[in-house]
Amino acid sequence: MFEVVYQSKKSRARLGKITTAHGVIDTPNFVAVGTNGTIKALDTHMVESIGLQLLFCNTYHLMLQPGADVVAKAGGLHKFMGRSQPIITDSGGFQVFSLLYGSVASELKSQGKSISRNMVLKITEEGVLFRSYRDGRALHLTPESSVEAQKKLGADIIIPFDELPPYHTPLQKLSSSLDRTHRWEKRSLDAHKKDPQHQLMYGVVHGGLDPVLRKKSCLYLSDLPFDGLAIGGSFGKTKEEMHQMLQHLMPYMPQHLPNHLLGIGDLPSIFKGIALGIDTFDSSYPTKAARHGLLFTKNGPVKIGQSRYKLQMSAVDPDCSCHTCTHFTAAYLHHLFKAHELTAYSLASIHNLHFMVKTLEECRKKIAQDAL
Amino acid sequence: MFEVVYQSKKSRARLGKITTAHGVIDTPNFVAVGTNGTIKALDTHMVESIGLQLLFCNTYHLMLQPGADVVAKAGGLHKFMGRSQPIITDSGGFQVFSLLYGSVASELKSQGKSISRNMVLKITEEGVLFRSYRDGRALHLTPESSVEAQKKLGADIIIPFDELPPYHTPLQKLSSSLDRTHRWEKRSLDAHKKDPQHQLMYGVVHGGLDPVLRKKSCLYLSDLPFDGLAIGGSFGKTKEEMHQMLQHLMPYMPQHLPNHLLGIGDLPSIFKGIALGIDTFDSSYPTKAARHGLLFTKNGPVKIGQSRYKLQMSAVDPDCSCHTCTHFTAAYLHHLFKAHELTAYSLASIHNLHFMVKTLEECRKKIAQDAL
Repeated sequence: MFEVVYQSKKSRARLGKITTAHGVIDTPNFVAVGTNGTIKALDTHMVESIGLQLLFCNTYHLMLQPGADVVAKAGGLHKFMGRSQPIITDSGGFQVFSLLYGSVASELKSQGKSISRNMVLKITEEGVLFRSYRDGRALHLTPESSVEAQKKLGADIIIPFDELPPYHTPLQKLSSSLDRTHRWEKRSLDAHKKDPQHQLMYGVVHGGLDPVLRKKSCLYLSDLPFDGLAIGGSFGKTKEEMHQMLQHLMPYMPQHLPNHLLGIGDLPSIFKGIALGIDTFDSSYPTKAARHGLLFTKNGPVKIGQSRYKLQMSAVDPDCSCHTCTHFTAAYLHHLFKAHELTAYSLASIHNLHFMVKTLEECRKKIAQDAL
Repeated sequence: MFEVVYQSKKSRARLGKITTAHGVIDTPNFVAVGTNGTIKALDTHMVESIGLQLLFCNTYHLMLQPGADVVAKAGGLHKFMGRSQPIITDSGGFQVFSLLYGSVASELKSQGKSISRNMVLKITEEGVLFRSYRDGRALHLTPESSVEAQKKLGADIIIPFDELPPYHTPLQKLSSSLDRTHRWEKRSLDAHKKDPQHQLMYGVVHGGLDPVLRKKSCLYLSDLPFDGLAIGGSFGKTKEEMHQMLQHLMPYMPQHLPNHLLGIGDLPSIFKGIALGIDTFDSSYPTKAARHGLLFTKNGPVKIGQSRYKLQMSAVDPDCSCHTCTHFTAAYLHHLFKAHELTAYSLASIHNLHFMVKTLEECRKKIAQDAL
């Protein structure tokens, strides 16, 4: 299901093909995020026309709304949202532990103090008992229940349940958390292997910023029959910290498996990651930036709300072949943002996703020519 | 530019063709509202594929953002928004007088007391001095400046500047307002005729609910060289009041001109209006209803947020040929609304506009068969 098509002579970068039940993903590639079973402000039809080969949906959100059973009754997430191409879901762990510590950004500020304890009721070896933000009911997320939910969602690639210790975690606690995460991932894998169906499962390498723990996690998971490995947990406070961690970790990662970096989508990090051998990157950043009026171009981001675009009667990027740039001017987009029109968010999202698709396409071409 | 193709034998309903610089509008027809130069949550490309022959944009909004000069520099509204089909703009009068009296609904409650006087600075025979809600600057809207702005916007059909006395206006004041409106409309027409370009101008019949004034307005405007007549002003508190007013007025309306009913878009009113000889109807109701999760069907509106749709794995309307119904289930739409996804508003708007297009198409077929 994963084939390395070409190994660069200049770096650890490689070209690959991940084959799933719903088609092939050329790597390296960017994975767009459609948390609730849609990319915000776009419909599946438009998303498919942009050419995104893999879509990341969030099990936590889909479990709470509409519920995994509803999606199962629809025949799985592909049928539910009308997508014919590959989908990956996460375990829900990230969101459940975010209930405890807040977002990555706010946790970095809060020094690891937990925030809304009343949302997470109990963490045990079994799993996490938490409260639904929608209706207040208590839900138990365990390795087995996460895999069960992901079976119902039916994504092509699924993720084992893991614990997410925040950045500010003492080494001893980080180490015992890693051991628990490994036990949870093993239980997830066992649950998955009982009925693999068409699904692939990626393990998630943890260990925060500690080199010893990262290596330990990588070696432990490499020995289990996962179909790929993702890199999760804390990546540090700065891009430099993350880059150092990846430089240390990547040489231990199994080269015959696809390697995914969780939640990173800025281009400098993507390019550095590719050179280190990472194959796929998921992030909501391109669509979130779009909704805030930040449009990507080769010459850097365009802040479309700036008055300099009021009279630009050409496309945001005249060389861009996306639906937005071929049909509408920067002046019109500027106007739609100023008028707070929902259409602005759709058109900007189309542009940024198309930019990511094209940028990664070019990146693959350069790797093939050893020109990255 | 207007041709009656068929006159029903059973009622005043007729089939017609309005020919504009950007194509033909088959009548009777529904006119969608794209206030800021876009239909909310949709882009021009999608709107054109739905088949809406005429789009209504608001001069008041476009004057303030992006400004008529910006649109003129883009080459007019068609080029600015990328629309190849006909557009109609209003004069801005309705919105300026709404600043004084509030919306129609709130004025009906307030008994005609003015609300935000500080927004409207002065009303004179010359025109209205008002304050921009965007940047606080004072703007003068007069018959001449409204036409000038509408020339810059370049819509196919434009509207003369008029005064909008609210529902609670004593007869004497209503009568003097009508006289002023007639003077303003004449000045608008004169300004237009100096440089008609490709544009048509519709007069606006006023007179509130008073039969004598309505008739007077209709006869006065019929004698001026307008290309069509719209019906504006107060339509009363209830649909019954509006219907009575129209029953009285329509026999005086010139049959060789297209007749437009301003701001009415509910189907019962449209069907009654068609039977009385009205040709076109504009309203933001179908798209506003869509964004509130009200989806139109032949069997009445579907409130898609209701839990009964949670598991409906077929289209909202299985017989509907719209993009939304052919690609997505009611369960998926229900989910998108529950998850507050912007995609929901786009998909619902597509469905409701397609429903209006198809309903009016069928209506025209029935008129041709004298079966309405």
